[in-house]
Amino acid sequence: MLMIICDGLSDRPVKLFDHKTPLQAAKRPAMNSIAKRGMSGMMDVIAPGVVPGSDTAHLALFGYDPYTAYTGRGPIEAAGAGLKMSKGDVAFRCNFATVDPSMNVTDRRAGRIKSGTDELSKLLSGLKIEDVEVAFKEGSEHRCVLVFKGPGLDHRVSEVDPHTEGEVLVSKPLVPEATKTARILNEFVSESYRRLDAASINTKRRKDGLPPANIVLPRGAGSLGNLDSMPERYGLKCAGVAGVTLVKGICRMVGMDVPDVPGATGGLDTDYLSKGGSALKLLDSHDFVFVNVKAGDVAGHDGDFMKKVEIIESIDSMLELILRELHEDVVIAVTADHSTPVDVRDHSADPVPVMIAGGGSRMDSVKEFDEVSAASGGLGRIRGRDLLPIMLGMADRAKKFGA
Amino acid sequence: MLMIICDGLSDRPVKLFDHKTPLQAAKRPAMNSIAKRGMSGMMDVIAPGVVPGSDTAHLALFGYDPYTAYTGRGPIEAAGAGLKMSKGDVAFRCNFATVDPSMNVTDRRAGRIKSGTDELSKLLSGLKIEDVEVAFKEGSEHRCVLVFKGPGLDHRVSEVDPHTEGEVLVSKPLVPEATKTARILNEFVSESYRRLDAASINTKRRKDGLPPANIVLPRGAGSLGNLDSMPERYGLKCAGVAGVTLVKGICRMVGMDVPDVPGATGGLDTDYLSKGGSALKLLDSHDFVFVNVKAGDVAGHDGDFMKKVEIIESIDSMLELILRELHEDVVIAVTADHSTPVDVRDHSADPVPVMIAGGGSRMDSVKEFDEVSAASGGLGRIRGRDLLPIMLGMADRAKKFGA
Repeated sequence: MLMIICDGLSDRPVKLFDHKTPLQAAKRPAMNSIAKRGMSGMMDVIAPGVVPGSDTAHLALFGYDPYTAYTGRGPIEAAGAGLKMSKGDVAFRCNFATVDPSMNVTDRRAGRIKSGTDELSKLLSGLKIEDVEVAFKEGSEHRCVLVFKGPGLDHRVSEVDPHTEGEVLVSKPLVPEATKTARILNEFVSESYRRLDAASINTKRRKDGLPPANIVLPRGAGSLGNLDSMPERYGLKCAGVAGVTLVKGICRMVGMDVPDVPGATGGLDTDYLSKGGSALKLLDSHDFVFVNVKAGDVAGHDGDFMKKVEIIESIDSMLELILRELHEDVVIAVTADHSTPVDVRDHSADPVPVMIAGGGSRMDSVKEFDEVSAASGGLGRIRGRDLLPIMLGMADRAKKFGA
Repeated sequence: MLMIICDGLSDRPVKLFDHKTPLQAAKRPAMNSIAKRGMSGMMDVIAPGVVPGSDTAHLALFGYDPYTAYTGRGPIEAAGAGLKMSKGDVAFRCNFATVDPSMNVTDRRAGRIKSGTDELSKLLSGLKIEDVEVAFKEGSEHRCVLVFKGPGLDHRVSEVDPHTEGEVLVSKPLVPEATKTARILNEFVSESYRRLDAASINTKRRKDGLPPANIVLPRGAGSLGNLDSMPERYGLKCAGVAGVTLVKGICRMVGMDVPDVPGATGGLDTDYLSKGGSALKLLDSHDFVFVNVKAGDVAGHDGDFMKKVEIIESIDSMLELILRELHEDVVIAVTADHSTPVDVRDHSADPVPVMIAGGGSRMDSVKEFDEVSAASGGLGRIRGRDLLPIMLGMADRAKKFGA
């Protein structure tokens, strides 16, 4: 099985371009050839009228109920940073930031600090507060991740990061069960100031006129909940090809192999052909391969119709390469994780077109891949959570219920 | 956003009229123009194979789960009568009825009593039974509403109204938690007989040869449950235009402004143009305006095909007036709360056609609005509960879940 998610691909009719969507305006022979030999439909990735985040959307596309599987961004960032989590652990995404001695945030990103954060991390990782162990890892620039491991933790605490300049917030439990977690979190933040403010790297930064990275500001608390991995849940060997850290994090969190693909950056310069080639290679060793192509979303956020058309045509070239080599028994699905209409410049609740072909797929009369054509297809209107089970069915990997 | 519900609009093919539905037989240029510029689909207002009541249907159309939001008709009638309810209160719809001294019902509607019920209400409102306060209000003719306010109440009690001539029933708790409520209810019914039988208005009725309104028969117990209002839930200022008391009650219950519209009677003589004009005016001051046009349902109940066609054409004129003034950014939805086929003369479980246009709506290839054309539209088959979220999405008022 091969699932290709064109991030933010779908759109709304745009007046200036004869009421066409970028997908309708693009030359897309490979996409259309998949539509011709398979089934099309529309998909509410989360539910009708819900605007999907990239994180919740991908959880749904992997067959999880995002309302129970998603508690916050922390665990996804932790997975992206390579920190292992167990059930009961609580993770936070954090910034290295700059505070003055009265604990006022003067720079939420410590001047977008470029180097030395690995040394700062070492000062915090391995800390023990009460009976809770602290795992800590730096990310790119000012970004970092914090994991608490210990008994009696609960992610339902308020954030420490004020999200603007001003006083560092004191975390409060949002439910009585989270009292301990809030206490440990506040203690961690104080300790981060004590340890980082005195760090030699910050002495040097001050000397160079740079803001010191002298505190950690956690937010987006989350726990793993009852998330069983995709290999456990479906009995599949899974791999994910993605450029964006967030998506890579989700892939790791659900138990996929996530190889580094040369040239896969997640930006407008992503090397589509390299991603396509990697996907084909991974299909030799994996039951399920997932590919995320991010660039359409970026053009949508930029409100750039012509750029989005161009990106769709590049994705189509990637698909052409894949189709040339793909065995007809492989069930291939092409869709989006959400719409990012150029007129909205953000995610929207509009359902996304989806098509599936190969394996035991039926065929319908749809001949093109776009928001209007797909709506008359044989898949009807489905939910994001249903996509993987439908693919499993067409690949004869679904389980019988009853006798 | 503008939601127009044509009550009981949709139908089944009728043999005598060349297997057309009244909607297919009607001239409906305004409806068709909306279909042309938007998306169509079919909608199970509650769920496939469930015959919607007008009350449960409207709750679903406003985005509520009718299975948890609807416990009985009482709270809707209370809201319609202007009685305020709080969580924990239990409401009943009631009749003023006539009983003989051995508590046998001889007339369930007290001769459809026309006047003086306000005085009878005063004898009952403000009563206190144990620690429970009684609020009571008369409606039109023999109809009235009862609300219990106090600790430890539960709506799950059997009805007092025998629904036919015969003995007044003793209410029984259907669950142990409702023991107190049943006891209070039975005491209230006895007390209503003691107070009303002796009322001067009934002495006069007996003298005039009219049946006395000497007892109150409650039925349709319900509580508010966890119903949050539409303004709370969606952050929208909402208004409802309706003629029928029941629909007005639901609108008030969910927190809409419900202005009195001149000429909006809910019958066959409803002034459609007045309703349309009111809706347009309300859109200036409200985020969401709802219009219920009742008459199609009445013609369905009467089994009158030609009358239904005529009513649909009048509704189309109302839509024409609305479309002439409506800004293209307003998301407009036109649908029904249920089907009332003329061959059935009652509500049926047949899904209803639905169309949405304006705002960020996409377009599909459907060009007419009827039960058959809509079924091939781009909305697919949705549920009543999904309609408002989909409209919110197209109006860019939906919330993001995740990041």
